[in-house]
Amino acid sequence: MPTLREVPAEAVIASHRLLLRSGMIRKLGNGLFTYLPLGLRSFRKVEAIIREEMNASGALEFKPSVVVPGEIWRESGRWETMGAGMLRVVNRVDQELVVSPTAEEAFTALLRSEISSYKQLPINVYQINTKYRDEVRPRYGLMRAREFTMKDAYSFHTDDASLDETYQEMGRAYRRIFRRCGLSVIPVRADSGAMGGTGSEEFMVESEIGDNNLILCPSCGYAANDEKAGCAPDPLTSGPGSAPATVPYAEIATPAVRTIDELCAFLKTTSKAFIKTLIYRAINCELDISGAPGAASLKRVQPESAAPYYPEAFFAVCIRGDLDVNEVKLAAALKASEVELASDSDVERITGAPVGFAGPVGLSSVPVVADLSVMAMHDSVTGALKADAHFEHVEPLRDFTPFLSADVRTVVAGDKCASCGATYYAKKGNELGHIFKLGYKYTRSMGMNYLDENGKQQTPTMGCYGIGVDRTLASIIEENHDDDGIQWPMSVAPFQVCIVPIKYEGAMKEAADSLYNELSAKGVEVLLDDRDERPGVKFKDMDLIGIPLRVVVGDKNLPNVEVKKRGEKDASLMPQAEAAKALVTMVSEALAALRAV
Amino acid sequence: MPTLREVPAEAVIASHRLLLRSGMIRKLGNGLFTYLPLGLRSFRKVEAIIREEMNASGALEFKPSVVVPGEIWRESGRWETMGAGMLRVVNRVDQELVVSPTAEEAFTALLRSEISSYKQLPINVYQINTKYRDEVRPRYGLMRAREFTMKDAYSFHTDDASLDETYQEMGRAYRRIFRRCGLSVIPVRADSGAMGGTGSEEFMVESEIGDNNLILCPSCGYAANDEKAGCAPDPLTSGPGSAPATVPYAEIATPAVRTIDELCAFLKTTSKAFIKTLIYRAINCELDISGAPGAASLKRVQPESAAPYYPEAFFAVCIRGDLDVNEVKLAAALKASEVELASDSDVERITGAPVGFAGPVGLSSVPVVADLSVMAMHDSVTGALKADAHFEHVEPLRDFTPFLSADVRTVVAGDKCASCGATYYAKKGNELGHIFKLGYKYTRSMGMNYLDENGKQQTPTMGCYGIGVDRTLASIIEENHDDDGIQWPMSVAPFQVCIVPIKYEGAMKEAADSLYNELSAKGVEVLLDDRDERPGVKFKDMDLIGIPLRVVVGDKNLPNVEVKKRGEKDASLMPQAEAAKALVTMVSEALAALRAV
Repeated sequence: MPTLREVPAEAVIASHRLLLRSGMIRKLGNGLFTYLPLGLRSFRKVEAIIREEMNASGALEFKPSVVVPGEIWRESGRWETMGAGMLRVVNRVDQELVVSPTAEEAFTALLRSEISSYKQLPINVYQINTKYRDEVRPRYGLMRAREFTMKDAYSFHTDDASLDETYQEMGRAYRRIFRRCGLSVIPVRADSGAMGGTGSEEFMVESEIGDNNLILCPSCGYAANDEKAGCAPDPLTSGPGSAPATVPYAEIATPAVRTIDELCAFLKTTSKAFIKTLIYRAINCELDISGAPGAASLKRVQPESAAPYYPEAFFAVCIRGDLDVNEVKLAAALKASEVELASDSDVERITGAPVGFAGPVGLSSVPVVADLSVMAMHDSVTGALKADAHFEHVEPLRDFTPFLSADVRTVVAGDKCASCGATYYAKKGNELGHIFKLGYKYTRSMGMNYLDENGKQQTPTMGCYGIGVDRTLASIIEENHDDDGIQWPMSVAPFQVCIVPIKYEGAMKEAADSLYNELSAKGVEVLLDDRDERPGVKFKDMDLIGIPLRVVVGDKNLPNVEVKKRGEKDASLMPQAEAAKALVTMVSEALAALRAV
Repeated sequence: MPTLREVPAEAVIASHRLLLRSGMIRKLGNGLFTYLPLGLRSFRKVEAIIREEMNASGALEFKPSVVVPGEIWRESGRWETMGAGMLRVVNRVDQELVVSPTAEEAFTALLRSEISSYKQLPINVYQINTKYRDEVRPRYGLMRAREFTMKDAYSFHTDDASLDETYQEMGRAYRRIFRRCGLSVIPVRADSGAMGGTGSEEFMVESEIGDNNLILCPSCGYAANDEKAGCAPDPLTSGPGSAPATVPYAEIATPAVRTIDELCAFLKTTSKAFIKTLIYRAINCELDISGAPGAASLKRVQPESAAPYYPEAFFAVCIRGDLDVNEVKLAAALKASEVELASDSDVERITGAPVGFAGPVGLSSVPVVADLSVMAMHDSVTGALKADAHFEHVEPLRDFTPFLSADVRTVVAGDKCASCGATYYAKKGNELGHIFKLGYKYTRSMGMNYLDENGKQQTPTMGCYGIGVDRTLASIIEENHDDDGIQWPMSVAPFQVCIVPIKYEGAMKEAADSLYNELSAKGVEVLLDDRDERPGVKFKDMDLIGIPLRVVVGDKNLPNVEVKKRGEKDASLMPQAEAAKALVTMVSEALAALRAV
């Protein structure tokens, strides 16, 4: 328990700082940590809570090796797509190995040999095991380390209804797990990203250093990652652009005006009156644009057993001038693996004008995608596809017809809730857990099959469910600490009670030992501070390491002892004879409270 | 629990075969395995026993990362010496990483930052964690896998007495651990190999596929690896060579006779009458041979803070003709990191004769090392340092004087015990655990220091203590199985009791459920076989997975049930109402028996 008064400057968040200061972890290398005994006790408790709830949900624990053959990653196709974050080694007999970053491949490979009949399905299997991701810039201690421990579960099903049942059950188990850990999580519908599934929920905790922007509704509880969040349409009800144009669109000269701001100044109006047009390049786009402008000249690939796609396609994306395009939502709308802003030369080739004068009116080289905001606009201004010129009085559907209109805007605090219309607020969040309907991605690519009731070969559908154990531990500290140190919830504290004799000698030693023995016999986890230190040092350390209940045994008070909760200021004096019973009650009440809804 | 009737041909030993057949493990890759739920339960129990006994001995559990910086291996010098068995990776930001094969470096690096005073010593720290060694030819299932779990402990001390105390305590803890696992281990004094320590004990289990040759005394209990075993001298008491020569040694012509067998045939005598002379090349030899023949021309290196050594030196090693030189013992006697037979051209250069005619008489180019067997010989035959010639009537100390006489013979079954003179027998063994006094090797090379009572900087001495968890699990099965399957000791069985209803319906279901609930409530680990299978299939599976106690619930016998121990043939009929109590007693008695000495 090597507690520290000072910590390295690199520890900028509370959990990192307090884990170091309380002697619970130490850095072994960049993004690599050692748990020390106290930290390991809490770590194992988080693990145990996760294991209990997973087992209670009917999931079965496995333990695959951490190092796995590269071969199975080649089978799934992820050898190519996982990128440099996956640690690969070629061993001395030229076998490709991977230090597992995740285990879809390992479990699919294992279960395809074991599952042969629909009678064996559904099945939900999991591990709590070491993982490695080669973060370029590991930081924030356990929050973004390279090596970490993860609970990852994988379920296999004959149909979507069965998958959904397990998916829902996992969602409930996750809520129980985080509640028992004393964590307030925000379950949010997450973007499915490149995984291509149809259901996905992330369990977030609020964090100033979070990777995710969360959009939250104070009224109905809607919560979403901004990569996925939608919002209620907000047509302009007054001012410029709020009423349909009564005259045809017309060109206006806008010399040396290229940005929205310059245009606002030039036309003395607001950005809400403009249709902003951005040219995007989409990679591996599966959207069928065969009838769209410019599509005839695009290369379209037809793989043997998957949807045809355009390796590269360009789009003009229109959005109200005050809003931003969300590229994840745009990629989803275009069924593309990725989108990026087109290069200046592509923009010039496509629009026939310098950058800054794109617009949908008269654009025939690429399909136009209009954000829903555009469809509600009137009498607006757009680029005129030539230098130093814009159009005014533009009306959507009168002056241009988009190939696709879709919700591609970045939702921000202040936008209106898609469900109830209340005003959103935003938070930054870190993902602790993720439940996700994978579908057939791995079972198909890795050839997992079973025989159905009719003896016909079928491919199972699959779900995956992950929780970062170390990150959960760190988040518990983020949410439960004060200036003096950690305030562990009872369920995950390294010890439930600490006994601090003012001096460990004479009657105080006797009382402390007797209380220690009595509590231990009753199953309470007790830490007895028998160090030869000043009381102040011991109190400070016990506050720092965050033991929920403290008993001070002092000559002055005996036969009474002082019992204090970690978060509270005042201690209660009680006879030593009653203290054990009172503490047992306090421990079990605290544990019960964490289990209650 | 996917049990199998047949297993892959590659599973040649019982534990590998039964772990696969009982559905406890599956192969994921070469030397890489997945534990399935039943196997994982037993694995965790072995882990828990180890953890309990380590904690009871006062050791503190840590958890360093599995992937560690290559930097600390460079500091200790083992980056160079660990060879290709250590899995190394350079990650995407050019950092050298190691997938830990062992953790002397990690713990020394950790503790050198935490230990500053003699008051913090001794300390014994351990982990139970994933390891990887890149076996070229992994086999025998869990017995020689690439990835495995190991308990490894490291202790740090101010002096040898303190180190010895922890070393002895670890020895006792290891005996308790293996006893609780139901294992008969053979504690043997092991060769310290290149680690250079002064105390070392290996805990072996007998195994037909063992890596180690064990020499055992039936009378006094002496047990040693043959790389270290000594034996009582055995002078010849009759026949050729048993009496001192009365005449000077003399050359005899031995045309085309090169091997001992040819010489025996030619001279019509036994190999015991010959002094066999082998030329050895020693690498990094620390023995001071500055006065010995041929040493003047050798290069000797004097490092800054270590003993001087000869990077390369040659020796003539003499041994009685029927015996073999043990190269590990020879290397230890020569204080060399390694020895190997010299090349033919070196032999010819050194002896001045073709291969097959080496001998100690008149040899002046290299030092002569005589095994103790040679010093007890008389009137013997040796090579004459020229082609087709030998000497007869050779007397040690009359006709040649060795530079060094030492015990370098390979002890075999039939030799006499060094301690008591009884006749040795031999066994093959696998190492499950090793306790070892490392001394200053890592603390010096990695610069770990503390301040002693006088404020003077000192280097701690160190011990290390390992147990292979998977290998222990496999060895339990090797020792506890029959033709039908595994026979788990109660302490490590995946479940303690199985309940097999003949059919899981009606009164049988009721009785089985009630017994299950009653036993579970009493803390017994019960497996209820509720499958819709024929009774014979269920019985076979339960025998295969080796649950120690079986309760059969059949219509015929109700309200009586049948209780049977896994190893026994006959079941007892008892009233269902009494069964739970009887089973609880049987479980606790079995556990107590494993804890008893």
